Amino acid sequence: MSATSWVASANAPDHNFPVQNLPYGVFRTPGHDARCGVAIGDLVLDLSALEQAGLLGAGGSEPVFGQPNINAFMALGSEAWARVRARLTDLLATAGDPALRDDTTLRGRALLPVDSVELLLPIAVAGYTDFYAGRQHALNLGTILRGADNALPPNWLHIPTGYNGRASTVVVSGTDIRRPLGQRKPPSATMPTFGPSQRLDIELELGAVVGQGSTMGQPITVAEADAMIFGFVLLNDWSARDIQAWEYQPLGPFQSKAFASTISPWVVTKAALDAFRVPTPPREQPLLPYLQEPGPMLFDIALEVAMQPQGAASSTTISRTNANTLYYSAAQQLAHHSVSGCRMDVGDLLGSGTISGPDKGQYGSLMELSWSGQQPLQLDGGQTRSFIEDGDTLTLRGWAQGDGYRVGFGECRGTILPAPVRPEWAQ
Amino acid sequence: MSATSWVASANAPDHNFPVQNLPYGVFRTPGHDARCGVAIGDLVLDLSALEQAGLLGAGGSEPVFGQPNINAFMALGSEAWARVRARLTDLLATAGDPALRDDTTLRGRALLPVDSVELLLPIAVAGYTDFYAGRQHALNLGTILRGADNALPPNWLHIPTGYNGRASTVVVSGTDIRRPLGQRKPPSATMPTFGPSQRLDIELELGAVVGQGSTMGQPITVAEADAMIFGFVLLNDWSARDIQAWEYQPLGPFQSKAFASTISPWVVTKAALDAFRVPTPPREQPLLPYLQEPGPMLFDIALEVAMQPQGAASSTTISRTNANTLYYSAAQQLAHHSVSGCRMDVGDLLGSGTISGPDKGQYGSLMELSWSGQQPLQLDGGQTRSFIEDGDTLTLRGWAQGDGYRVGFGECRGTILPAPVRPEWAQ
Repeated sequence: MSATSWVASANAPDHNFPVQNLPYGVFRTPGHDARCGVAIGDLVLDLSALEQAGLLGAGGSEPVFGQPNINAFMALGSEAWARVRARLTDLLATAGDPALRDDTTLRGRALLPVDSVELLLPIAVAGYTDFYAGRQHALNLGTILRGADNALPPNWLHIPTGYNGRASTVVVSGTDIRRPLGQRKPPSATMPTFGPSQRLDIELELGAVVGQGSTMGQPITVAEADAMIFGFVLLNDWSARDIQAWEYQPLGPFQSKAFASTISPWVVTKAALDAFRVPTPPREQPLLPYLQEPGPMLFDIALEVAMQPQGAASSTTISRTNANTLYYSAAQQLAHHSVSGCRMDVGDLLGSGTISGPDKGQYGSLMELSWSGQQPLQLDGGQTRSFIEDGDTLTLRGWAQGDGYRVGFGECRGTILPAPVRPEWAQ
Repeated sequence: MSATSWVASANAPDHNFPVQNLPYGVFRTPGHDARCGVAIGDLVLDLSALEQAGLLGAGGSEPVFGQPNINAFMALGSEAWARVRARLTDLLATAGDPALRDDTTLRGRALLPVDSVELLLPIAVAGYTDFYAGRQHALNLGTILRGADNALPPNWLHIPTGYNGRASTVVVSGTDIRRPLGQRKPPSATMPTFGPSQRLDIELELGAVVGQGSTMGQPITVAEADAMIFGFVLLNDWSARDIQAWEYQPLGPFQSKAFASTISPWVVTKAALDAFRVPTPPREQPLLPYLQEPGPMLFDIALEVAMQPQGAASSTTISRTNANTLYYSAAQQLAHHSVSGCRMDVGDLLGSGTISGPDKGQYGSLMELSWSGQQPLQLDGGQTRSFIEDGDTLTLRGWAQGDGYRVGFGECRGTILPAPVRPEWAQ
């Protein structure tokens, strides 16, 4: 039987946040500054309150949990990560240290119902890089954009392909997203037009959070990269397919992806996911030595996408897949990211790329699920969708399934608002 | 006759830093913290010392010049920029306020020979975006990479094309740069190989420094964008052409550009350059309304590139061009950058794209100057170069030429060190 917590709600076998998980986030309550916490059952444990009470020390010279992001804690390094995890496990486990459990006053101050707090962006995003490690997704997108003969780019089996994204618009789950304006030009048109994207999409991804930096000019190995990763979030890399198709050659996606990327409020630690490591799929081409993995570095994480139109009675699960289908691991991506000498920073966020399984119900974007709009999706309640309409809410969910417990991410959710209007640009 | 300063060295007609310029930078002296300054002749004026002495107020509630970057000053906005510029002009002009000139003690503390200080990165780079607005460069690169028939991408005359770069490796002039490692594969090879780039290059660019932010979900107009730009720097976007050619499809340049981008230590203000505004060249295709300029938004800035091998007696000027050849202005690029709703931040850096004039001696990269290595350059002293060799120093220079004075950028310089070695990756 798996370990339990004296926080009863944490022990439900399908709960996202049992004592085995302890994901980090940042929250705010009325009249108080943002601070760091961990999720346990239906509660948030205020780490700043524990730190102030002398029950929890991260080991640095200054307190780290009274800050509006977890970057200062991550910067302390892997020994601090392990020490704090062990201490929190001890304080929250049924058979552990009763110091918090038996202190009614402190419990009242430090354990807050998650519904009573505002969850904020957990990390200060230093840089955001989006990769492209889903083989089925690359194949699907390539087929749609370039035809079946040129679907998988020639470098794809050799390079964990990626591009720099825009860090300023990474937002936390629950943030409403404005439909982007932009240029698009169907191949049949002679001139581009301007207006709201008509092919607004999601991308189901896992985001790796870099917890330790590297030095400019000094590439890191895959093993070093694995050690530098602090944890993972769910990531929705919102994408405007019509803008993307017209802009992306030759310098890659830009405004089609820059308007928003949503992450889950909880960073699930690599430590909590260690029990769910799996190897990458067999290599179709041998990798160069700098990309070879010394051990299993993917994670077995079930993933789902749900869609709910405004006013609909329920949401429809439109995709079910797993992060174990990725061709490259986050550690390989991070090693590749540094190979030129690029400096990596605490708080860098690396998107996995869209996670599409081999079957149609496993695709991680509407572009694939509706096959570029040719096969609209049927939603519960009778509506159909090829792409996202104003008022639609999209929700990602994910969890690693243990024996009698789950290590879950919770939700990564966003609702689309109508595009902004600037009358002077009317065509 | 043009205005003069009581700092005599500022009055030489070919000096970069006359009283008409007053560019902002950040510097350090032994035993003291980094702080903001402006260049005047051969001296640096310590703005923090002036602020502390009560001679200079930026108008904010807190002092802003005792910081290791000019972001806090920029964040105060255009009225503060104008007020400080007017005050500094008054304090430094021959016929101005004698408060600084006549205070020998303060002069000794606040006016330092530039050779006695260490110049640092002037801005905290929030995001770095590199554009592609040099028409001749796009034509040259396109011809080399894709052939003359597909040289200019179909979207190029409609979109100020750009991609997100890597902010963590933007460094100040004088920083040595390690040759990057990476993958490359000539078309004739069946498998990629790994090692130091063999086609290391520069890109001569102007960088626009964003001094005011925008709100996520709210696009800005070209006129608003022009008002948000604080100033400009010289920018060398170092590029590894062999890595780039193999990696860049379909998501754009990544590690081939991520290892380093060098900027000049001095940010020349838009106010100092206003006298040198010129219109963009005639449009070959009509622009969409959101990109149309209400007035001249390019700048007439002469630019040069010099190359000096290690141990060579002198450097060779290998290119002479002008920023007035760009097809899109920084204001147009910034407006496009925000059009999707992308939030722009104080400290964002926008590279213009490589500035190549129409003639061969005006090209802004070695890839173009040596035509992909087919026509090596002859350097003074007898050496030849197709691309950069270890120990070579590359220096960019730029200035706007007024009547009897120059508004100059100084130098943007870097020396290439050998690639790092990780024996475990030997092939």
